[in-house]
Amino acid sequence: MPATGTVNLATARTMEFVDITAAIQQAVRDTGVADGLCVVYNPHTTAGLTINEGADPAVQADILAALQVIVPMRHPFTHQEGNSPAHIMASLMGSSVSVLVAAGRLQLGTWQKIFFCEFDGSRSRQVRWQLMVG
Amino acid sequence: MPATGTVNLATARTMEFVDITAAIQQAVRDTGVADGLCVVYNPHTTAGLTINEGADPAVQADILAALQVIVPMRHPFTHQEGNSPAHIMASLMGSSVSVLVAAGRLQLGTWQKIFFCEFDGSRSRQVRWQLMVG
Amino acid sequence: MPATGTVNLATARTMEFVDITAAIQQAVRDTGVADGLCVVYNPHTTAGLTINEGADPAVQADILAALQVIVPMRHPFTHQEGNSPAHIMASLMGSSVSVLVAAGRLQLGTWQKIFFCEFDGSRSRQVRWQLMVG
Repeated sequence: MPATGTVNLATARTMEFVDITAAIQQAVRDTGVADGLCVVYNPHTTAGLTINEGADPAVQADILAALQVIVPMRHPFTHQEGNSPAHIMASLMGSSVSVLVAAGRLQLGTWQKIFFCEFDGSRSRQVRWQLMVG
Repeated sequence: MPATGTVNLATARTMEFVDITAAIQQAVRDTGVADGLCVVYNPHTTAGLTINEGADPAVQADILAALQVIVPMRHPFTHQEGNSPAHIMASLMGSSVSVLVAAGRLQLGTWQKIFFCEFDGSRSRQVRWQLMVG
Repeated sequence: MPATGTVNLATARTMEFVDITAAIQQAVRDTGVADGLCVVYNPHTTAGLTINEGADPAVQADILAALQVIVPMRHPFTHQEGNSPAHIMASLMGSSVSVLVAAGRLQLGTWQKIFFCEFDGSRSRQVRWQLMVG
């Protein structure tokens, strides 16, 4: 199997977190590579990637609520499309995450999940991943 | 060609985004490496790197405007140099970006560009890049 | 020596930065690898990693002070554990940092140090690192 690929997803709301951990873990396993570094990349400019707690969905809701307080939603932005807050949130979260891989498994912490962060949905989205051999 | 190098740039304003995509793409092409991961690293503590929309310059202006609302610019900070907001923005944007490379090309999304984020200019700056073979 | 490992640390305060540069540099040196990319990974969901100025400790204090202004500390969050601000700060700082390595040395800028960012201490913590050969 190639050590790079794409995961497609569809978001349902304007802002939401989508847990992509299982899809990335499956892709890593399918490569047959035991040890390395998995980089997940988001090619969209109004979405991001983050790693945070997945056990209690309230954490995801709280992060999204906080971002809407942190980012000035009613500022007189100049970008005519009207989605400047989504662009700003994208840069605050970041465009990629890197996770160590050992024995074919993502070395996430006990409570960690990888989240695709939609800030301007709903949309069809994709993330790309690459597994670098360690 | 070596798979690592430096891109020099000069910033003109206190805060500005500088599109370094073409310079990084050229450096990647010059290595002759087809597939891998390009890591771009910022060695400065009052600047950062981000990937966001490059088509409409208003997006860059809006992100910079938002950062000046998000970060408390008039807080009684203790760092005597007076540029604590620039240090904070540096950590919010991050010190590196990672981009997948396929067939010698950065795998950026349609609207994405790589931006050097100046928060305490004008200055002579540099970014370092490294291409890891996939 | 293996090219991956763990650094243990104990934090003393609710929020603090811990400079882990020397520990990561020593780990990199012990691998015997000259050139590559060092990825440092934080497996905790109420902590993060950042690279910023280490010369004046006031910068660390100012970043922590700013984060407590940026993140709404008294928002009616829904996560019952009461540490949602720490989760949000974790995502703002990010879960990993990547640093180029040349001649066995981390290629940090003159003033840069790697900081573990505790947002919900005091706790026993760990970070994992991996050195990818360039």
